[in-house]
Amino acid sequence: MSDLSLDKMRHSCAHLMAYAVSELYPGTKVAIGPTIENGFYYDFDLPGPIGETDLAKIERKMSELKEKSFDYIQSWIEVDRALELFSHQPYKQEIIKEISEGGRDDFGQKGKVSIYQSGKFTDLCKGPHLSSSKEIGYFKLLNIAGAYWRGDEKNKMLTRIYGTCFEKKEELDHFLWQQEEAKKRDHRKLGRELDLFVINDSIGKGLPLLTPKGTLLKKQILDYEYRLEVEAGFKQVSTPHISRSELYKKTGHWQHYRETMYAPFGIDGDEYVLKPMNCPHHYMIYSSKPRSYRELPLRLSEPGTCYRYEKTGELAGLLRVRSLTIDDSHILMTENQIEDEFALCIDMVKKMFDAFKLKSFYVRLSLSDPSDAIKYIADEGTWKRAGDLLEKIVKNNRLDYKVAKGEASFYGPKLDFMVRDSLGREWQMSTLQLDLFMGKRLGLTYTDESGQEKHPVILHRGLTGSIERTLGIIIEHFAGAFPVWLSPIQVEILPISEKYAPLAKKMLAEMAKKQIRAEINDENKTLGAKIRQSTLQKTPYMIIIGEKESKKNGFVSVRTREGGDLGLVKIDEFIKRLTDQIEKLE
Amino acid sequence: MSDLSLDKMRHSCAHLMAYAVSELYPGTKVAIGPTIENGFYYDFDLPGPIGETDLAKIERKMSELKEKSFDYIQSWIEVDRALELFSHQPYKQEIIKEISEGGRDDFGQKGKVSIYQSGKFTDLCKGPHLSSSKEIGYFKLLNIAGAYWRGDEKNKMLTRIYGTCFEKKEELDHFLWQQEEAKKRDHRKLGRELDLFVINDSIGKGLPLLTPKGTLLKKQILDYEYRLEVEAGFKQVSTPHISRSELYKKTGHWQHYRETMYAPFGIDGDEYVLKPMNCPHHYMIYSSKPRSYRELPLRLSEPGTCYRYEKTGELAGLLRVRSLTIDDSHILMTENQIEDEFALCIDMVKKMFDAFKLKSFYVRLSLSDPSDAIKYIADEGTWKRAGDLLEKIVKNNRLDYKVAKGEASFYGPKLDFMVRDSLGREWQMSTLQLDLFMGKRLGLTYTDESGQEKHPVILHRGLTGSIERTLGIIIEHFAGAFPVWLSPIQVEILPISEKYAPLAKKMLAEMAKKQIRAEINDENKTLGAKIRQSTLQKTPYMIIIGEKESKKNGFVSVRTREGGDLGLVKIDEFIKRLTDQIEKLE
Repeated sequence: MSDLSLDKMRHSCAHLMAYAVSELYPGTKVAIGPTIENGFYYDFDLPGPIGETDLAKIERKMSELKEKSFDYIQSWIEVDRALELFSHQPYKQEIIKEISEGGRDDFGQKGKVSIYQSGKFTDLCKGPHLSSSKEIGYFKLLNIAGAYWRGDEKNKMLTRIYGTCFEKKEELDHFLWQQEEAKKRDHRKLGRELDLFVINDSIGKGLPLLTPKGTLLKKQILDYEYRLEVEAGFKQVSTPHISRSELYKKTGHWQHYRETMYAPFGIDGDEYVLKPMNCPHHYMIYSSKPRSYRELPLRLSEPGTCYRYEKTGELAGLLRVRSLTIDDSHILMTENQIEDEFALCIDMVKKMFDAFKLKSFYVRLSLSDPSDAIKYIADEGTWKRAGDLLEKIVKNNRLDYKVAKGEASFYGPKLDFMVRDSLGREWQMSTLQLDLFMGKRLGLTYTDESGQEKHPVILHRGLTGSIERTLGIIIEHFAGAFPVWLSPIQVEILPISEKYAPLAKKMLAEMAKKQIRAEINDENKTLGAKIRQSTLQKTPYMIIIGEKESKKNGFVSVRTREGGDLGLVKIDEFIKRLTDQIEKLE
Repeated sequence: MSDLSLDKMRHSCAHLMAYAVSELYPGTKVAIGPTIENGFYYDFDLPGPIGETDLAKIERKMSELKEKSFDYIQSWIEVDRALELFSHQPYKQEIIKEISEGGRDDFGQKGKVSIYQSGKFTDLCKGPHLSSSKEIGYFKLLNIAGAYWRGDEKNKMLTRIYGTCFEKKEELDHFLWQQEEAKKRDHRKLGRELDLFVINDSIGKGLPLLTPKGTLLKKQILDYEYRLEVEAGFKQVSTPHISRSELYKKTGHWQHYRETMYAPFGIDGDEYVLKPMNCPHHYMIYSSKPRSYRELPLRLSEPGTCYRYEKTGELAGLLRVRSLTIDDSHILMTENQIEDEFALCIDMVKKMFDAFKLKSFYVRLSLSDPSDAIKYIADEGTWKRAGDLLEKIVKNNRLDYKVAKGEASFYGPKLDFMVRDSLGREWQMSTLQLDLFMGKRLGLTYTDESGQEKHPVILHRGLTGSIERTLGIIIEHFAGAFPVWLSPIQVEILPISEKYAPLAKKMLAEMAKKQIRAEINDENKTLGAKIRQSTLQKTPYMIIIGEKESKKNGFVSVRTREGGDLGLVKIDEFIKRLTDQIEKLE
């Protein structure tokens, strides 16, 4: 089933739900009911409160109405007639008035609005819909939430019912399993249980603090990326988190990106602002001295923490934050170098995904929408050229891709890498953006082979995009059971009693020598309790030290978090096994 | 000569200079002439412009007056008589009026002011001074600068003459040599020449951007510190650069540290501010879950970039900045652990100084001044106890120290480590601060052995203090010729012609395998020019690859930045030599 057909079916299912609710709760006022990612919702102003337990009843009513079978019939009616028809529906009336005043899309026909009739239920709606209720597949109502009319807390709180619908039963079952699994591995829940990060209201919303274990996780990722970068000839720089606002006016961020930037603050009469992106800071390093073609491509990189304003309601643990560390790079180069540099970066992205065991991805080729010129730095010709080049690169590098018009950055088209996690959910991660404008706009130059001054073009590279978001994604992807190389603690040493503490410390020291991250659990608990604790903490390996092990010099008993018992193992061999695994990013 | 006697002599020398200037340039109006670190200055409103070339003339006049010999005679006179006496000295009149209005220190006697007569020159001055001009040692005038009266640019620009004075000629000579040397190795000059950092007015004053080489330098320091920390059981955390202002009101930073903080900015109606210190962020990680005595000492650390407001006039390259990365740690512990934890940190500080070849240091034991109670979080008893304990620690660890009253932080007394660089100049670096207050104030707790709730005490540790400042200090200390382990580029590979490019690349790859930072200079220049270039860039080693080397498989010719020629060396041996040096922090 195509995305479009699925969307149509879900939309029709939303109407079916509204139909059922209106039948079950007479006097219900209906607000709006769009489709969303993975399903649909509808907002109701109900005559009385309902709870999650009522969803089954609504589902039964929906099935009953669907089985009776009805068609979805569209008609175009005059505004006046519509106001009459929806005289008992104040929310619809508000929308109709807006349409007639031109404040809203008029649904296609001047002076008229589109309505859909489905059985005894009529809705203001521009469609499209299925022809008949019989075509609706397998649906499930998911949950109930409160939602202010128009998202404004000054308005009335309505009841929002979420649901979903799939063509096939297996698809619905898979989705429900995925939802269930996702709840269990919610990174906010695991973040607390595994002590990885904290969000504290005294510091502020959307500003995560990484605890020691969360920081180790971040460090493993940044260290690995640094290795990849050194190999590929990148050069790290280090820049502050603020800048004079003036700079962003020059780059165009102020004009195109203002709503995402924080409020400015004054220093000595000048206006400063937290940086929303690292690019301008890197350009200032580029422009700090005369550059020759010999220095290009110049690959500046930095894990730079940026600050972006996100609405409180949109913040979500580590997945949507206000302080984000971008594993950023800006490659300043000649036009001839574009294809090679993209290939180099695509290779790095693939290696990174491999390291995270993210096996499936495709590229969203985000191009400009020429009809929305105001959003972009002008010059249609250059936009076209850049877009064509990116498409060529995507093809030459044999990447699966989808085109997304209007999704380009304000300074250029881009490749957004969409990955599927272990639950099959889709996430946007890496991004490679081509920028043919900024070099000229900011007067960045280099001297070419013939001594002429030229402007470099720029590749903006986010290797994973945001480290915080990546942490959120991989916590859920691995359900907290990270590969050995990523695990904050790789080995938990469990002495059976105090008597074996010295031997435990000796083991710890031997592992420290090989940079293995180990810890001793010397709490006064039973071995069983300690093993349970380490298993819950998802530590890859546990080493047990007791009578048996202390007698057999140089041997330890090893268990795994999966419940495996590797028996007595020579400590050297165990360390070798671990260092091999770490080296292979296992 | 004690600091106090030296200061008195310099003050008398400043009067001698004002006497000479008044004689040479009749009609001169004198403003103020205090002593400063390493010397003195006097601000004059001269009848006409003078230049650096006039300094010799003034010096000669000073010698002449000194040789004639005069005494410094103090008297206390009524304000009215003083106004009459200084009727031609408008700046002195201003000061006298302020004194009489009580807006200023009244120099000790109510209704009177103190004046000093020295030969034919009389100055408004509270002293103290030498008894006779004969006691003045060896002086030198250093330079001339413009300075607004009272530092306010709305006032008249005066002429400031800087000078210095020492008891012995050798001391003066040594100081002048030091000044000359310091100019040559000024980190702002070397920072440009070696391409280490950039300050860009579009980003803002006091906000350095580290270039690739500067970032490598920073990374070596942070990596080394991380190794020390892992060994010592520290745990890194990672926190944002902003916080709600509310938090700083709770900690007392808002009340005691306000002038150093940036202006706040709004998010969703809340007030936020850039963090001036990392402490509160770390405390929020501590307080994110219940803590047991078993977890203590908990050593949280972070190279955290903080933002502090410094006046434009006080900014100085990397030495005084507005964005500074503190290699910070907060050790939360029981009172019994204080001495051990201090010993642990003192050991780390010593290792760090060793790594920087900073051979001489002493500790400034900064205590509270009970007469200035308003500056500190109250409770004199606790202050006394903390101060005594620090003195005991300093003694037990056999550290040279000086006591500095009134230099404590608002939350506790501290040990500031004062190092001498290779020119003998003194710098403040590491700091270890004891804080017996904040745990209680913020309600931080742990459960002790008997199940009782207690407040942890805190050791604030800045290993070098600020990484930016440290970079500034070590650039000057090493004059840019960093030890091998710190050098951004450790080896420059110089192929004699294009023919040897493949061999050069092979060498580069071999060194990369051992994490040696090497670079190829394949510019179309003579070998001599390339060697000169590398020497100026202070790269520790140069490898030359030509006919001779390509014939003798596995050998290269090695030169050093000091001009040494190590001749043909086996590449494996050379790499071994380097890795040994790096491991030994040479």
